[in-house]
Amino acid sequence: MKNILLLGGNGFIGRNVLSYIDEHLAGQYKVIVFDLQNSISLDFKFNCVEKVYNENFEDSAAIKNVFKENKIDLVIHLISATVPVTSQNFRFDIEANLLPSIDLFNIMAEANVKKIIYLSSGGAIYGKNSSNENIEIAEHFPSSSYGIMKLTIEKYLYLFNIKYDCEALIIRLTNPYGPYHFSMKQGIINVAMQKAFKKEPITIWGDGENLKDYIYIEDFVDILFKLLPVHSGFKIINIGSQKIHSTNTILQMINQIFPDFSWKYQSAEITDVPLVNVNTEKLKELVGDYLFTDLKNGIEKTYKWMLDNYSYYS
Amino acid sequence: MKNILLLGGNGFIGRNVLSYIDEHLAGQYKVIVFDLQNSISLDFKFNCVEKVYNENFEDSAAIKNVFKENKIDLVIHLISATVPVTSQNFRFDIEANLLPSIDLFNIMAEANVKKIIYLSSGGAIYGKNSSNENIEIAEHFPSSSYGIMKLTIEKYLYLFNIKYDCEALIIRLTNPYGPYHFSMKQGIINVAMQKAFKKEPITIWGDGENLKDYIYIEDFVDILFKLLPVHSGFKIINIGSQKIHSTNTILQMINQIFPDFSWKYQSAEITDVPLVNVNTEKLKELVGDYLFTDLKNGIEKTYKWMLDNYSYYS
Repeated sequence: MKNILLLGGNGFIGRNVLSYIDEHLAGQYKVIVFDLQNSISLDFKFNCVEKVYNENFEDSAAIKNVFKENKIDLVIHLISATVPVTSQNFRFDIEANLLPSIDLFNIMAEANVKKIIYLSSGGAIYGKNSSNENIEIAEHFPSSSYGIMKLTIEKYLYLFNIKYDCEALIIRLTNPYGPYHFSMKQGIINVAMQKAFKKEPITIWGDGENLKDYIYIEDFVDILFKLLPVHSGFKIINIGSQKIHSTNTILQMINQIFPDFSWKYQSAEITDVPLVNVNTEKLKELVGDYLFTDLKNGIEKTYKWMLDNYSYYS
Repeated sequence: MKNILLLGGNGFIGRNVLSYIDEHLAGQYKVIVFDLQNSISLDFKFNCVEKVYNENFEDSAAIKNVFKENKIDLVIHLISATVPVTSQNFRFDIEANLLPSIDLFNIMAEANVKKIIYLSSGGAIYGKNSSNENIEIAEHFPSSSYGIMKLTIEKYLYLFNIKYDCEALIIRLTNPYGPYHFSMKQGIINVAMQKAFKKEPITIWGDGENLKDYIYIEDFVDILFKLLPVHSGFKIINIGSQKIHSTNTILQMINQIFPDFSWKYQSAEITDVPLVNVNTEKLKELVGDYLFTDLKNGIEKTYKWMLDNYSYYS
């Protein structure tokens, strides 16, 4: 039985990690959840959850206390205080994302905890490069402060790896969607489906023709736990489904489920990234060919989950 | 007549910029110096200096005030609160280097100042890569927090370039040495020469066989002012002499000038970079072949300058 500290355990991806452990890895992991929010996870009652800390990631004494009260084998760091579109106050971005992450890594080093998975970003780091250049080893100039912060945290993880032998698995994830998503700030598929569910129209930035790689969240979590035993040292890995779709395609698919659904377009910000299609050769080397859930199927599964959990969306 | 805001104007490179303007560009630039220290520059009395602000770079109100009181055409940003070897407190590094730089760029954007030269680092950014890989466009993993900060500031300058059209010339400089150097914290040539001057022994980290690219500071400043008219947009440029020398070679050269000079070796830290030899093809495209001062000649010129300015070293 290993102990995971799940930072951001009450977010979209965090809840999927908990749900996956309950379903596929029951008895193998106990999870300590650290998350500022507590409203939703309490309702869901995941069996693997040992303890929940509802504290602020910026409070380093609170983080220190978690390591004092628990023996941690693995940290999964999913916390981000900002999303690309809200990341306009650069100072806040640094203070709320970078500084607490550095504190966390220092506390891990002191507590002799030597394994971390960090959720970075495929889209935000790769910026405006074309698809072939989006390999892990090229230099990147993110077009948002959010992306710069992710990249900077990656660099510090490298430093903690060489200084303290801390194993770091960095995931540059494309655009996940699926169950347990409640944010209205990011994730076009889920935001659009929530709007459709509430019979509200949605505003699309740009002309809806921008192409992105979307990945069904359960595929991602499954890959994550397949990577764990094959990983060592310091590694950056792109994870994406390798299929790109336009926003318009997504809107039409959602429209087939919700006939009343409507949308309008608004001119795009300069920070918009027109195409993000990451290279996944490295991932293939580690876990082989993966049979990804196709977009139509993933959207339908998400819809069924929403119907089963209707109360959260009304 | 253009107005330069020289941040760190009282440091080693800053004083050389002032000296170069007085000698080669008199009447073309007025310089506003911003630097926490004031002890030395006042003695040197550079004619191009219009005003001196002895304030803290972390005090954004002080920076704001400079832009209110002066029309600035170009900012030269040379301030770093840390050096690679002291850069062990990562939080301090972020708070003292990254945050004030972000504040500066925001203030520049508000004041509509659209031109900046930023002194980044060749050695600290390139880390342990071999010489051929040290091109500007590859991804790098610095082996110090100092290097990560330089890299992160570069990324934000890219963001300010795409958001506010701010032209940024980023210099990844190798190891400068020469006149006006008083620090005992970095710059092996100058530190060793100061030790020799005072008849003190020096401790060398490692075996003295590590190779680095050293550049005579007057060459660097000359190149900087040659780059100014040919630069536009956002650019990262390596500047180095393209000749590498070991620390032992340097110590022997200094020993020829100071026969009493002695040194001892101490085991190296993991953050030491064994070879830094940057690629300068991009520089050659912009300014052509440059006749660099050779190391022996540069050390002798530095020695003569030290003799002329004897009082500062006793």
